[in-house]
Amino acid sequence: MLTLALLLQAAANSPAIVAKSPGEIVAQAPSSDWVDIAADDLLVMQLAYGRRVVIQLMPPPFSQPWIANIRTLAKARWWDGTTVNRVQDNYVVQWGDATEKKPLPAGMIATNENYGVPREFAGLSNRVTKALGPSNNIIQYESFWRGFPLKTWGTPDSASTWPVHCYGMVGVGRNLSPDAGNGAELYTVIGHAPRHLDRNIALVGRVVEGIEHLSSLPRGTGNLGFYEDAKQRVPIASIRLASDLPEGERPRFQFLSTESATFAAYAEARANRRDAFFNVPAGGADICNVPVPVRRRP
Amino acid sequence: MLTLALLLQAAANSPAIVAKSPGEIVAQAPSSDWVDIAADDLLVMQLAYGRRVVIQLMPPPFSQPWIANIRTLAKARWWDGTTVNRVQDNYVVQWGDATEKKPLPAGMIATNENYGVPREFAGLSNRVTKALGPSNNIIQYESFWRGFPLKTWGTPDSASTWPVHCYGMVGVGRNLSPDAGNGAELYTVIGHAPRHLDRNIALVGRVVEGIEHLSSLPRGTGNLGFYEDAKQRVPIASIRLASDLPEGERPRFQFLSTESATFAAYAEARANRRDAFFNVPAGGADICNVPVPVRRRP
Repeated sequence: MLTLALLLQAAANSPAIVAKSPGEIVAQAPSSDWVDIAADDLLVMQLAYGRRVVIQLMPPPFSQPWIANIRTLAKARWWDGTTVNRVQDNYVVQWGDATEKKPLPAGMIATNENYGVPREFAGLSNRVTKALGPSNNIIQYESFWRGFPLKTWGTPDSASTWPVHCYGMVGVGRNLSPDAGNGAELYTVIGHAPRHLDRNIALVGRVVEGIEHLSSLPRGTGNLGFYEDAKQRVPIASIRLASDLPEGERPRFQFLSTESATFAAYAEARANRRDAFFNVPAGGADICNVPVPVRRRP
Repeated sequence: MLTLALLLQAAANSPAIVAKSPGEIVAQAPSSDWVDIAADDLLVMQLAYGRRVVIQLMPPPFSQPWIANIRTLAKARWWDGTTVNRVQDNYVVQWGDATEKKPLPAGMIATNENYGVPREFAGLSNRVTKALGPSNNIIQYESFWRGFPLKTWGTPDSASTWPVHCYGMVGVGRNLSPDAGNGAELYTVIGHAPRHLDRNIALVGRVVEGIEHLSSLPRGTGNLGFYEDAKQRVPIASIRLASDLPEGERPRFQFLSTESATFAAYAEARANRRDAFFNVPAGGADICNVPVPVRRRP
């Protein structure tokens, strides 16, 4: 478990390495540091005019009931013909059935408000970016794990871990508690990390390609950024699991292993930019300012 | 100087107040909590099709040489006919003279890399949102001051204060150090706060209205999000100080005093949402997740 302090120490001992930009560090990663994303974990959303958005679903143990529903909905082609209905500046883009009356497919799983998991269950080989504890007997840290940003908080006996709302993360719209959403109504973050949503909504994945097709949509002028005129809604041609597409049409992506030494160096460089443009390294980076690198599989 | 801990304590004693949403708290602010923005501090950018972006320039002591240049450029109508040239997703929109050859007006002031100011100079009536020190004899806190988000860091004798890169903040493009930019090339943040730019670039203001006209522009596909085809650039019809517009055309804005009790309650509610949608208050908020409320003057 590398803390930021340790990373800084390592950096001080390796001046040749730290002058690289984060992008240069990633470009030089050995191929063994790149992790294939399984076709069953990729959700492919087709909008009009060839605009494609690809989402990586989150690995267990997080949000599994919603993710099972999302696979069910994709297999049922339930989203085909639905729309992007809400674009709120510096917040979220949201899509689903604007009528809220479209019948759901069979096999949907009931969900409840388990947005985090016990810390022991979350796996501990994660990369800690900000260790804030223990103080007052509270364990508190942010980390990356299998490509996703997490936060852990609580007493040693009861700490839990949950995914956090960074730019591009995908979550499940819901009504008031105890409703927890079913996965049919989804959104992605297109602004500063709305961390107040953490533990209040199920996060199910993140956009790995094409978020610009959502983030550049015209903002809705209705309450919460909903489009006021139905004609403004953006039609969704289809949403499929990559594994349900013909072999030749499947997008193939890799993410930089968040457990790799390359990722550690990348995160350190994001926290302390020393490449040519920068005069003063920041001394730290918000977890959401360390986006996990993704590439198309070479 | 209110720390977050004190705010939380106050909240615990006032359950009737904290059940309000941040928006409700702001809507109920007395008119005395709203501060007029002087017409000389408002920069009005007109794009095609009536799209207007309004920027509030930062008050002294921050970035004054660049802001003086910006006033000079606006009075010289220097930006008229220039373009938005760069739109990088989750980062910045940048505008200015794409040729980099347009002659500058007389009276431009030389700048240097003074991106922060001594703490004593920054004024101390500010609202602290996150007190992280002192530890190891380092003073460290984030605060709001006259409508802007600031960070203070350093030893008691040498601490300095600087504005921070939140969503919508406007800064000055520059080349490699020691160049510090002159104010002719500007950008605004359209994604997660790029705090690594703090103290590396002059911040000169923030967008108070119309950022959606910039944040929803098509992303550039060139290096750093520059438009590859000159035809993609977005023409700027004019940039003027509101004080140079005819009286009847001047936009008039107010911001919620960041020194007011209403702002304290708003910031507390942003950090601990207890309105109907939320199950679990976050226990804190990043300074950039507490945007300073702005309204048109009633």
